[in-house]
Amino acid sequence: MSDAPPISRFPVPSLDRLPADLRERIDAVAEKSGFVPNVYLALAHRPDEWRAFFAYHDALMERESGLTAAAKELIVVATSAANDCLYCVVAHGAIARIRARDALIADQVAVDWRKADLSERRRAMLGFAVRLAERPAEVTEADLEELRGHGFSDDDIWDIGAITALFALSNRLAHLSAMRPNREFYLMGRVPKEILAQLG
Amino acid sequence: MSDAPPISRFPVPSLDRLPADLRERIDAVAEKSGFVPNVYLALAHRPDEWRAFFAYHDALMERESGLTAAAKELIVVATSAANDCLYCVVAHGAIARIRARDALIADQVAVDWRKADLSERRRAMLGFAVRLAERPAEVTEADLEELRGHGFSDDDIWDIGAITALFALSNRLAHLSAMRPNREFYLMGRVPKEILAQLG
Amino acid sequence: MSDAPPISRFPVPSLDRLPADLRERIDAVAEKSGFVPNVYLALAHRPDEWRAFFAYHDALMERESGLTAAAKELIVVATSAANDCLYCVVAHGAIARIRARDALIADQVAVDWRKADLSERRRAMLGFAVRLAERPAEVTEADLEELRGHGFSDDDIWDIGAITALFALSNRLAHLSAMRPNREFYLMGRVPKEILAQLG
Amino acid sequence: MSDAPPISRFPVPSLDRLPADLRERIDAVAEKSGFVPNVYLALAHRPDEWRAFFAYHDALMERESGLTAAAKELIVVATSAANDCLYCVVAHGAIARIRARDALIADQVAVDWRKADLSERRRAMLGFAVRLAERPAEVTEADLEELRGHGFSDDDIWDIGAITALFALSNRLAHLSAMRPNREFYLMGRVPKEILAQLG
Amino acid sequence: MSDAPPISRFPVPSLDRLPADLRERIDAVAEKSGFVPNVYLALAHRPDEWRAFFAYHDALMERESGLTAAAKELIVVATSAANDCLYCVVAHGAIARIRARDALIADQVAVDWRKADLSERRRAMLGFAVRLAERPAEVTEADLEELRGHGFSDDDIWDIGAITALFALSNRLAHLSAMRPNREFYLMGRVPKEILAQLG
Amino acid sequence: MSDAPPISRFPVPSLDRLPADLRERIDAVAEKSGFVPNVYLALAHRPDEWRAFFAYHDALMERESGLTAAAKELIVVATSAANDCLYCVVAHGAIARIRARDALIADQVAVDWRKADLSERRRAMLGFAVRLAERPAEVTEADLEELRGHGFSDDDIWDIGAITALFALSNRLAHLSAMRPNREFYLMGRVPKEILAQLG
Repeated sequence: MSDAPPISRFPVPSLDRLPADLRERIDAVAEKSGFVPNVYLALAHRPDEWRAFFAYHDALMERESGLTAAAKELIVVATSAANDCLYCVVAHGAIARIRARDALIADQVAVDWRKADLSERRRAMLGFAVRLAERPAEVTEADLEELRGHGFSDDDIWDIGAITALFALSNRLAHLSAMRPNREFYLMGRVPKEILAQLG
Repeated sequence: MSDAPPISRFPVPSLDRLPADLRERIDAVAEKSGFVPNVYLALAHRPDEWRAFFAYHDALMERESGLTAAAKELIVVATSAANDCLYCVVAHGAIARIRARDALIADQVAVDWRKADLSERRRAMLGFAVRLAERPAEVTEADLEELRGHGFSDDDIWDIGAITALFALSNRLAHLSAMRPNREFYLMGRVPKEILAQLG
Repeated sequence: MSDAPPISRFPVPSLDRLPADLRERIDAVAEKSGFVPNVYLALAHRPDEWRAFFAYHDALMERESGLTAAAKELIVVATSAANDCLYCVVAHGAIARIRARDALIADQVAVDWRKADLSERRRAMLGFAVRLAERPAEVTEADLEELRGHGFSDDDIWDIGAITALFALSNRLAHLSAMRPNREFYLMGRVPKEILAQLG
Repeated sequence: MSDAPPISRFPVPSLDRLPADLRERIDAVAEKSGFVPNVYLALAHRPDEWRAFFAYHDALMERESGLTAAAKELIVVATSAANDCLYCVVAHGAIARIRARDALIADQVAVDWRKADLSERRRAMLGFAVRLAERPAEVTEADLEELRGHGFSDDDIWDIGAITALFALSNRLAHLSAMRPNREFYLMGRVPKEILAQLG
Repeated sequence: MSDAPPISRFPVPSLDRLPADLRERIDAVAEKSGFVPNVYLALAHRPDEWRAFFAYHDALMERESGLTAAAKELIVVATSAANDCLYCVVAHGAIARIRARDALIADQVAVDWRKADLSERRRAMLGFAVRLAERPAEVTEADLEELRGHGFSDDDIWDIGAITALFALSNRLAHLSAMRPNREFYLMGRVPKEILAQLG
Repeated sequence: MSDAPPISRFPVPSLDRLPADLRERIDAVAEKSGFVPNVYLALAHRPDEWRAFFAYHDALMERESGLTAAAKELIVVATSAANDCLYCVVAHGAIARIRARDALIADQVAVDWRKADLSERRRAMLGFAVRLAERPAEVTEADLEELRGHGFSDDDIWDIGAITALFALSNRLAHLSAMRPNREFYLMGRVPKEILAQLG
């Protein structure tokens, strides 16, 4: 699509002009996913911030945790939807579908987490995350107590809150730059991989 | 999925107990779509309201209009998303994809109509609709003037406003009843029909 | 008042150019009330929508129900006031005064339903309706439970919610068109009929 | 109505136990109006605050001003409606009808000042007042400039703002105490005095 | 600072042109504080309102009460911060520090009263005050009950509410006039008086 | 103060159990400031997140930029105040006072950036930042244009937005953990260093 809008309002450096460590990571992602998610390019005009962002991302999202990978992605989807963030809802919606092996859950959580097909425990988790995303001063000790009542450890609660916080940052960078999600994300996790391949 | 949650908090009559005119319409829809959209069932415990609802729907959505069928569906998606209405975003998102022949536009409009791939004219249309949906008292003559400046006739403006109004009703019935969208809607319009068929 | 503002921003057809079924209904209302409520005229430029609107209205408002006629009108007044809708608050305020045989209750409910002279049961009913009107996604199963605790059946709850939903539509049509209430409504139900007649 | 709710949640002293200066003023009001407006009683448990409140009230409302008495009352009605204040909307709505010699204007301004039958100048005045009432930090120099453009002097602007400020106080006392308006206010200014007398 | 912005958008009369009673009070304050707080000057172009304002202020703030002087000032700080009122937060923050003999508490309460170093009782007091300041219609009997549960008498509750109400007025006058706090207030109560004197 | 509340709801490791790189940085800060700002301790239970956070912080806050160090700190203060974040307002308020060599500006910006003693250019900068902090989806190309009109380069705009985004994260971690600012911050930049030393 030659006439697609740019992926960011800010400069997007070409891959071959990036520092080697950025390019290495991007190449690895591209190999695994089959494409380069636009966030890797839209942040690259600031390599130090790029490094800090992905270091933070990996520290939280790839950490051994009481939260499953699917749960983490649903936190991203719910809070990013609360912030109307197109990039994060579409990209992490795709990852959530894959991690949860559920083609419907990301759309449900993005539109109305209260009515999504979730356990009470997960609903409490998302309720906490959305509150922290939208009205952070109103998060009180009682909210943490409620999560503990659902069996979350304090370490889990930190994960829920810190992922919410990281995407509060990420959502704002995406709105600042009008970052666009890659076309590929829209369909990922909705149909089997072999069909995706067939669709090209 | 034997354990799927019910499609409504309120009674859902079986098809064979419905008045003949309801059943007839439902049969026609089922034949055309391959399934019965849940809204037809979730409202059926009140046949008179059912008849009025679909009469209203048809009067607006199937009317010859200055708005294309795709434009109408995007109004539904944008305003239903402003109301966090799962049924309407998922079901009308599917119809919007088909009417607009665009696999991405419904997700874009549902998450952030401001950054969706739309002409300025369509963006103004959705801005007006969302304002009427969310803060109706703040719609003033100046807003209508702005739409006229984009080439909308007063008849078009009525359509934009009346569709928004009908789905203000519909979104509230859906939240009242916790109405669930059919599984089929999630994928419609994202992949070619022959692939859909293949997926069963 | 020759210089009164028009009753709508959109075309208002003259009675003699309306389809026979519309005219018939309007004549009956005029005969009963002594005047033609403006909503009948302001919607008449779209006869199919007119028919659907009043069919919906009658299906809910004239239905045998666990809710009294007065209760239904108070739902309209409270939710329309939440939407700052001049037409609906003034017109249905009048009807509420008459149905409730109470000259004060409509003003009380319009300004602050929390402090109106109502039973706890009615206050719970209006609290539910206003929540559905203003923040529909936040209506949860717990809210329905609370209404059941006040003795409302599920059928009653549907009525409360569906009336709220219909006037969510109606309020938005009124704001879209800047619909004006008839002068007569302002005083109806405040003084005995014979005095009203005397005032001309 | 022997079973009417109390006029305040807080103590209401009997007239004969009030300090002489309060009783004198109250007697004068009662003679003029035919009844004692409840605010005079509901504040009387704190005579010093009572004196300050009515001194403030008189300083603003009875002052020679570029604003007419009707304009001042409409500011009270619009801002008190923004605060959902039953006492002030009903009591000052009555006074506004009388001062403006207009039976309809108070209800219009209370429900939706944007659509009330007002000149552009008055609408700007109410827009400013409601903004100061609801989101005071957002009132900027540009808002004052707009009022000046409508011909308001800086002295007028102070009156508009100070009346709004005084009723920000008054509305909160009314909500704190659940202050009830007198029955008489509901009908005042809606029908000629001789009819009112006839109604008893 | 010759180029400091004016202390008000409205006229500020020179001290020698003020009525004697105003001048007398101002002289007394100046003697005690070492400077004339700007509010005394910014309101002085309206002597009657000035008198009413300070009469109201004294009636509440200098009254024997179940609330300590420090508690009263914290109510002012918390509600004025909710209204983003620079004059009241800075000036009454200073007084609060002095009354509470606590150099930190005013900043804590201004930024986030929920996390300030307060007893549960004081936190409940401020929660009530902020609710009345921000969403007065939502204050219900249950909120008063909660305060009674913390040992507040009804007289105390009136004080909490009335102070909140008076500063709802005061905050709006300050925003209307862009009233500036005196430089002196910023440091008062943060360091011992002898240091302050040393700083000049 | 032996009974001061803990600095975080989450575990705070003792310095001697921290990884060497954390300890080294903390020692350096302590040497420079005379104390260890609590954020260094409150995040230390998660060393990888700690490293990413401070790497991000340094990348933005210590970068050569079109924004002065003072401007950057005022962005932190304004947006953290919008989020009611006690730690960030108090700690970065102190740094802002020092960087701006202005004892008053941080309090002004924290309470009401609109009325702070700022140039129009800086006011526009803070208006943009606060909008991105509070309603990120509403930041549009027109907002960026306005900043360009004030002479900000796109690189400056990225800095404004990215600092806002980073503290959107930071504010949420602080609310999550109820992080407390050090006592020292409250007074820094208000009085000359030699006085501070004298106060101990």
